[in-house]
Amino acid sequence: MKLVCSKSNLLKSVNIVLKAIPGKTTMPILECILIDASTNNIKFTANDMELGIETIVDGTILEKGIVAIDAKIFSDIIRKLPDNDVTIETDGNLTTTITCEKAKFSISGQSGEEFSYLPYVERDNHIVVSQFTLKEVIRQTIFSIAANENNKMMTGELFEVKGDMLRVVSLDGHRISIRKIELKEEYSDIKVVVPGKTLIEISKILSGETEDEVSIFFTKNHIVFEFDDTVVVSRLIEGEYFRIDQMLSSDYETKIQVNKKELLDCIDRATLLVKESDKKPIILSITDDNIELKIQSQIGSMDEEIDINKEGKDIMIGFNPRFLIDALRVIDDETVDIYLMNPKAPCFIRDEQQSYIYLILPVNFMA
Amino acid sequence: MKLVCSKSNLLKSVNIVLKAIPGKTTMPILECILIDASTNNIKFTANDMELGIETIVDGTILEKGIVAIDAKIFSDIIRKLPDNDVTIETDGNLTTTITCEKAKFSISGQSGEEFSYLPYVERDNHIVVSQFTLKEVIRQTIFSIAANENNKMMTGELFEVKGDMLRVVSLDGHRISIRKIELKEEYSDIKVVVPGKTLIEISKILSGETEDEVSIFFTKNHIVFEFDDTVVVSRLIEGEYFRIDQMLSSDYETKIQVNKKELLDCIDRATLLVKESDKKPIILSITDDNIELKIQSQIGSMDEEIDINKEGKDIMIGFNPRFLIDALRVIDDETVDIYLMNPKAPCFIRDEQQSYIYLILPVNFMA
Repeated sequence: MKLVCSKSNLLKSVNIVLKAIPGKTTMPILECILIDASTNNIKFTANDMELGIETIVDGTILEKGIVAIDAKIFSDIIRKLPDNDVTIETDGNLTTTITCEKAKFSISGQSGEEFSYLPYVERDNHIVVSQFTLKEVIRQTIFSIAANENNKMMTGELFEVKGDMLRVVSLDGHRISIRKIELKEEYSDIKVVVPGKTLIEISKILSGETEDEVSIFFTKNHIVFEFDDTVVVSRLIEGEYFRIDQMLSSDYETKIQVNKKELLDCIDRATLLVKESDKKPIILSITDDNIELKIQSQIGSMDEEIDINKEGKDIMIGFNPRFLIDALRVIDDETVDIYLMNPKAPCFIRDEQQSYIYLILPVNFMA
Repeated sequence: MKLVCSKSNLLKSVNIVLKAIPGKTTMPILECILIDASTNNIKFTANDMELGIETIVDGTILEKGIVAIDAKIFSDIIRKLPDNDVTIETDGNLTTTITCEKAKFSISGQSGEEFSYLPYVERDNHIVVSQFTLKEVIRQTIFSIAANENNKMMTGELFEVKGDMLRVVSLDGHRISIRKIELKEEYSDIKVVVPGKTLIEISKILSGETEDEVSIFFTKNHIVFEFDDTVVVSRLIEGEYFRIDQMLSSDYETKIQVNKKELLDCIDRATLLVKESDKKPIILSITDDNIELKIQSQIGSMDEEIDINKEGKDIMIGFNPRFLIDALRVIDDETVDIYLMNPKAPCFIRDEQQSYIYLILPVNFMA
């Protein structure tokens, strides 16, 4: 195999497929990028068996062939080469020589035989969204998936299509994040659970531009994202997602309207006094024209007042400050509406159209 | 005690004295900043017993007093306050209240009684340099102090004044870095060893401006840096520094002149193939018009040629690539001169005036 590509093209493509290289594995072949120049395209592939990425690289094939090489070493080398054309050449022993200007690297490659190609996936059911929208919706929900694998379903996000509406949901047992996106056309119903890891990696590759599109294909076991010169295939999480609709209520006893930045800054300050380990709540005393926010820990105490508009009853309620911060950070509105029922019922942060709903369970601060 | 300062002034001063707060200690008082408003100035002090820093804070004293408070918590609070005037007030129990706009923090303070003030140091012997010069000379030599404490003397840097010349030297057993600085006037002879940690911390505080000056005072046991509103006092390392002059030689068999960036980039690329743990040398084969640089490890091999000007014999010599990189990075010249004797003798990278000399021991690559 012999091919020539610019350093910048190589680097761009390597950075894309690197996202499917596992951190730790006992199978060395999973740590490789497959360089496939056996047809008329140069194609890089990486596949950790749950998430697989394939991307076309701009360049010239001088001699067809295929080789698998260690992703980390290959990417380190490309990164440090001068900004010029790079030649990649493999000999009969799969020793791979990477040449750029006067620099010449030799590393050993492996045959592509053991490499797991991306699974073939039917392209029937699909939707189209902009890269901007997909990247945003991931950012706005991904923080409330569960970190540990005790409940596999909680480590993923629900992607649900009904008519021209995509709903993305994540939850971790203490809170629920929901975002609704209007699609440009009507699609058939879809309901799948996508691994959080897949979404985190794909959002690093997406351009985030409103003009660039992503096609998302769904099957029983896989989800496929196609955009630019790249295909990302991921397994789905099997099983039925939580019935969230019965957890959502539109009843409330108190509704407040508050400047988002003021509230966020205040809670952010309060967290100074809380170490990761001790779970001190922040206590909100909501009265007619303001909230008083209070936190008390071994380190000290904080106390601050914020002006609000209020409808309904006074209420005193405690929250994990982290959960409020996570939700407020991803809301772009200048003011937010918060709906409360009583000190033991969840609060809802949502806009009027319910394009977003953040449900957060309170903490019993009397204990 | 009660005082008012702007958030930005507080933050600037806290960040300065924080440099003398130890990472770990069994004495909680060392983790404190002393806020001293007992005279007409507001003064912050921190002192880890080896390094002490004192700085004057712009602000208004409403009630004189003194309190020691946890540096980490205090700095975290200041950092997160709104950008406005901050009131710091201590009650009879030394509970300290920090108020800014509607935010109010309370933390407990300690009396200043246990606090170690900076030692009193005679201000006889001194030199003056610009903050730029001091910051630069530290950057250009600090990398070759020894990291571990086995040989205490190697963890410091020699500061030697003779006439109108300041010489700064560091060495770690494999290499020596020397920088000479011409002073604006003649001073009496000085020869002290300053702890590397002191120099690292002080270079973080220095503005780096050529117009700003630092006065450096020397006594038998201490060095004092005075600049802006800040005083830094450090213990010296006791004992006699290594006799480096006898290690320096101006004899050579081979002299080469090479583009610094080309050489640096090439060695930097080569280090890709070397893990921290295995000490593979880079081998330089110097012939008439070029150096061939080669490195070989378990990961693979690299090979590159660089054009040079050469005087004297051909030579093949091996080095720890890290040491060459460290020295080349802090040389600002476009081309550098390298002097070599034989494969077992050190090489010297130095300019004609010897304003810098970097001595690096070679590695036996036949082994």
